[in-house]
Amino acid sequence: MIKVGIVGGTGYTGSELLRLLVRHAQVEIAAVTSRSDAGTGVADFHPALRGEIDLAFTTPEAAGLADCDLVFFATPNGTAMNEAAALLEAGVRVIDLAADFRLKDLEVWQRWYGMTHAAPDLVEAAVYGLPEVNREAIATARLVANPGCYPTAVTLGLLPLLEAGVVDAGRLIADVKSGVSGAGRKPSTALLLAECGESFKAYSVGGHRHQPEICENLRHAVGVEIGLTFVPHLVPMVRGIEASLYATLQQSGLDLQALFEARYRNEPFVDVLPTGSPVETRSVRGTNLCRLSVLEPQGAGVVVVQSVIDNLVKGAAGQAVQNMNIMFGWNEATGLALSALAP
Amino acid sequence: MIKVGIVGGTGYTGSELLRLLVRHAQVEIAAVTSRSDAGTGVADFHPALRGEIDLAFTTPEAAGLADCDLVFFATPNGTAMNEAAALLEAGVRVIDLAADFRLKDLEVWQRWYGMTHAAPDLVEAAVYGLPEVNREAIATARLVANPGCYPTAVTLGLLPLLEAGVVDAGRLIADVKSGVSGAGRKPSTALLLAECGESFKAYSVGGHRHQPEICENLRHAVGVEIGLTFVPHLVPMVRGIEASLYATLQQSGLDLQALFEARYRNEPFVDVLPTGSPVETRSVRGTNLCRLSVLEPQGAGVVVVQSVIDNLVKGAAGQAVQNMNIMFGWNEATGLALSALAP
Amino acid sequence: MIKVGIVGGTGYTGSELLRLLVRHAQVEIAAVTSRSDAGTGVADFHPALRGEIDLAFTTPEAAGLADCDLVFFATPNGTAMNEAAALLEAGVRVIDLAADFRLKDLEVWQRWYGMTHAAPDLVEAAVYGLPEVNREAIATARLVANPGCYPTAVTLGLLPLLEAGVVDAGRLIADVKSGVSGAGRKPSTALLLAECGESFKAYSVGGHRHQPEICENLRHAVGVEIGLTFVPHLVPMVRGIEASLYATLQQSGLDLQALFEARYRNEPFVDVLPTGSPVETRSVRGTNLCRLSVLEPQGAGVVVVQSVIDNLVKGAAGQAVQNMNIMFGWNEATGLALSALAP
Amino acid sequence: MIKVGIVGGTGYTGSELLRLLVRHAQVEIAAVTSRSDAGTGVADFHPALRGEIDLAFTTPEAAGLADCDLVFFATPNGTAMNEAAALLEAGVRVIDLAADFRLKDLEVWQRWYGMTHAAPDLVEAAVYGLPEVNREAIATARLVANPGCYPTAVTLGLLPLLEAGVVDAGRLIADVKSGVSGAGRKPSTALLLAECGESFKAYSVGGHRHQPEICENLRHAVGVEIGLTFVPHLVPMVRGIEASLYATLQQSGLDLQALFEARYRNEPFVDVLPTGSPVETRSVRGTNLCRLSVLEPQGAGVVVVQSVIDNLVKGAAGQAVQNMNIMFGWNEATGLALSALAP
Repeated sequence: MIKVGIVGGTGYTGSELLRLLVRHAQVEIAAVTSRSDAGTGVADFHPALRGEIDLAFTTPEAAGLADCDLVFFATPNGTAMNEAAALLEAGVRVIDLAADFRLKDLEVWQRWYGMTHAAPDLVEAAVYGLPEVNREAIATARLVANPGCYPTAVTLGLLPLLEAGVVDAGRLIADVKSGVSGAGRKPSTALLLAECGESFKAYSVGGHRHQPEICENLRHAVGVEIGLTFVPHLVPMVRGIEASLYATLQQSGLDLQALFEARYRNEPFVDVLPTGSPVETRSVRGTNLCRLSVLEPQGAGVVVVQSVIDNLVKGAAGQAVQNMNIMFGWNEATGLALSALAP
Repeated sequence: MIKVGIVGGTGYTGSELLRLLVRHAQVEIAAVTSRSDAGTGVADFHPALRGEIDLAFTTPEAAGLADCDLVFFATPNGTAMNEAAALLEAGVRVIDLAADFRLKDLEVWQRWYGMTHAAPDLVEAAVYGLPEVNREAIATARLVANPGCYPTAVTLGLLPLLEAGVVDAGRLIADVKSGVSGAGRKPSTALLLAECGESFKAYSVGGHRHQPEICENLRHAVGVEIGLTFVPHLVPMVRGIEASLYATLQQSGLDLQALFEARYRNEPFVDVLPTGSPVETRSVRGTNLCRLSVLEPQGAGVVVVQSVIDNLVKGAAGQAVQNMNIMFGWNEATGLALSALAP
Repeated sequence: MIKVGIVGGTGYTGSELLRLLVRHAQVEIAAVTSRSDAGTGVADFHPALRGEIDLAFTTPEAAGLADCDLVFFATPNGTAMNEAAALLEAGVRVIDLAADFRLKDLEVWQRWYGMTHAAPDLVEAAVYGLPEVNREAIATARLVANPGCYPTAVTLGLLPLLEAGVVDAGRLIADVKSGVSGAGRKPSTALLLAECGESFKAYSVGGHRHQPEICENLRHAVGVEIGLTFVPHLVPMVRGIEASLYATLQQSGLDLQALFEARYRNEPFVDVLPTGSPVETRSVRGTNLCRLSVLEPQGAGVVVVQSVIDNLVKGAAGQAVQNMNIMFGWNEATGLALSALAP
Repeated sequence: MIKVGIVGGTGYTGSELLRLLVRHAQVEIAAVTSRSDAGTGVADFHPALRGEIDLAFTTPEAAGLADCDLVFFATPNGTAMNEAAALLEAGVRVIDLAADFRLKDLEVWQRWYGMTHAAPDLVEAAVYGLPEVNREAIATARLVANPGCYPTAVTLGLLPLLEAGVVDAGRLIADVKSGVSGAGRKPSTALLLAECGESFKAYSVGGHRHQPEICENLRHAVGVEIGLTFVPHLVPMVRGIEASLYATLQQSGLDLQALFEARYRNEPFVDVLPTGSPVETRSVRGTNLCRLSVLEPQGAGVVVVQSVIDNLVKGAAGQAVQNMNIMFGWNEATGLALSALAP
């Protein structure tokens, strides 16, 4: 049993962490912070958690975070980089669900996030928390950068192909689609149901922060330069990401299905479906799973991978719990034995 | 550990039962039947259950149901009344999630369901499985009639008022709204997303089968004749029921909040919210909870109750599991410790 | 051909007015104002209007509104009451789509809208713009208060019953449901798709501004005191209102269908469906129609009326255009010959 | 004023044709056929058309189609090929909204549609009704094959690039997304709101009939072989198609925006948005427009085109009306002056 703190408990990654942690057998939630809502009962703020948690939000100062074994940052970008150092020095392990430690290339980070990084040394020390790539490093990490939602779906879909060196790494295409919860819980006009309901659109076609994250981390993982055209779209639904990935095969006659199954045979949260299976986002709703389907349609030399995750679970809070489980040496699936809610 | 069988595993109540039972600590799923899909892997049919269950659908004949401790019928109306007797004689307990045993008044049943009842004696023996009303009888029942989804939401919302005798029982109004999964998984034109998406409507205004079910069971519960105008509506969403209930108060100065809180203080799956709280269907999504809010707006002598449930859980499979827990003497919440999926 | 101005062109009522007016044969749009977006092309702001309109937003000061024949206020509550007087003095007719002139009872208005009214004399002069009630007064009005969306749906559904004196006017119930566009286009957390998608809830159960509007205007129309329990709900869709109305009949044996058909025989925008017909919001999407269905289910003495409108058309901009047509003596349907978009 | 007949008036393309034709100044609707619903009032079947049309469905035999000037087939694939010849011989012009005459290569057609073609000679004579490519041939055509919905969106997005010869025609990718109305109005399990609501998925990844249609017609249009990876997806909404198109540029320094604007300068129903504009499906809802946006993100040598249409209008019934207008020498926009319904 460890004590964990959550910095930033009013957004969707925060509430999803709470949904998972209230039932986690090894965890006591010691504090949940919110500057704006300090004093409010967590379950009053998130009525879906009524009966699950008795805490009220506290300010970060009053939260006693330094006494925790682990602190999750479920905050906007730019928060953890200012607050993580003190916790790490106090011996607390940290998982940041925002983007502060995801990119090693600070120049790229600063360009995309529009801030000067406050803790460059921590960037160096942080481990990118994608267990399917960095499990060993996560196990001993003090600071984990939890991956973005799109990068999780895209990276898991492309990894087997790139590791095997069977596709042109310089001409990858990721056509990705997300439910609106990926954009967070801030007041917004663009994300009103009246604006994005019963409609579909691409956005950030000219450039999105998750593109450099995917490229850098794939390059680290497989050792080759990555060229990726990345186009995100907004789906009129709440949860779920689907990534359709296109790559040019450099070999023919490959058994792509076998390649994927072999790569993920021992992964508890990656499920490779039979060739040609449809892959619905609802089939992972509420779970920490990434489900994949791979195909070379009509033998045309282009491989198509479909990858689905729940953006708030494997794309955020669930992956953070998975990372915690690895960091503390527990069964990786502790607290993550969840069946998908379908329909 | 008991052995359970599920008759009819391809519909939504069947798949929801599976979602709950695969993680139930006291249950081994011995067989799941489907005449049309016998031989197909259950998880191939319901991809959301991949990795959760290894069985294939069997025919009822091959299922060995007589060797089970409990059999759930997740079948269309008119099936269980033909098959339950043999199982009961073999010592198997039965929970019917369809309507075959919900009404004691056979004439009414036959008018609404358009069939002659095949097992009138079992109707007499069956217990209406609403634990908040019939917990003791359920504990010793051999045959439980699991309530309909609307009746669950409406009955729980009206019970405290009727039991206390503070409203006019002859002039109740239930304006109820359901997501489309309540209508099942059969091919249909009316339930296509293209037909009922981005639209809202009432249906069956002239009469709906759940109206006599509510009236009969409320009459049994509180001992007075019930007059109920019941109008169901279809909401463009998948899961969830909201019932807005209107009744004329026959007393003034009542503490309605206290009345409701007292009635449900010891109920594990009924949650009375603070006066005037908004009650969203998503706050119970995936859970066995009924959340209620009660108010007398502007002191006008009309009490308004809002009641929300997940139609597939407290309105079907979850309540069936709750009934099973009671029948076998387990903690009533076994296998039902579920947090709502919100957002 | 008249010149019209629109004050406040960035919200949904403003854009819907534009959608209707760009094709209106008798109207030239002279100016569309927006303080915040002055200088921006109207069609750049509303891409759905590309190719339909060449104007840019102007400030109210630069708009030359005093030279218009008619000015529509599609502004927040509290704007028109400050600006209408000057226009009226300049001989401009005014239609306010907000609530400033909807209630004669200033005390009630001030309580619900939380402001001191700036133009009490104009309130007296204003005509409530529900053509089905006030057509003659509208024809000669200088200032029209365009009704709220809920009041339009509810009033049209109740009028025939109240005018005929066949129901208990003191015990009316309106269970109303609206798509989210009714709440406008302001940044908001509660109206995010991630908050209100795939969910359903009642809101403002304790009291909603449209309740006194309905009561006052019905009282004026039929001359009796109105007692109305009014509960609004939010539907996870963009457009559409459905009102389910419940009233206690004081006579038996009435031909309700004939009553409704007679009342609305000559109304171009009210359509009474055959008894018992389902009434979907999509059947009026994009149109100025109110479709109604009336029934006394099972002869129980309670009449149930379903009323559907498009909240942005008959509930706002379309009704405003209808009022304009009446004010200028044109065919009432000019510019409103629209087929519903279904599916 | 011409007389038109519609064969097959109960599906979505039929009802959408009716929505457009009831207001078309040059058209009298002489007959609407339906074998299954002969005798039913068209507006009783499609309540959204109440007040717009007085006809009842007739059988094809009783419809007097040979006396029409033009007959639309809004029927399943395989109907028009059996019935068009007799009408053409009688001097009636024909527009088939199904796929019977879309492919010149009969072998390919028969493989994808699983039937032997009944009228190969008519295939030869038919004109593919994409006005932006074949306007002159359409003007004199007796038989027009109205394009599929996906082919319309994809072809209009790729044409400028292929005509200019600036991309690799052998490595095109079309990641396309459609609302569910594209799949028609037949009873279905897969298209229930409960199945495809609040979820997103790819389908027919291994092959879809619209892929050969796009390839053949693009090859005819631009004279080069086309290699296209085509992956359709289902969006939880009713109307709208978005196509994200990816092609490898073979030149650098191109002004893609100018290329697209020049290509479509005189097209009444193609709108090229400013570089980098988001393109929402709702911005064309209910209209005959195709809106396009083109960009080379980050100068990476891959051009990305977004193309949106309303699948039932420019993707079906609207394009059919546009073709009719061309065939009869009317202004091409007659009956198609429609503003998008947004929100």
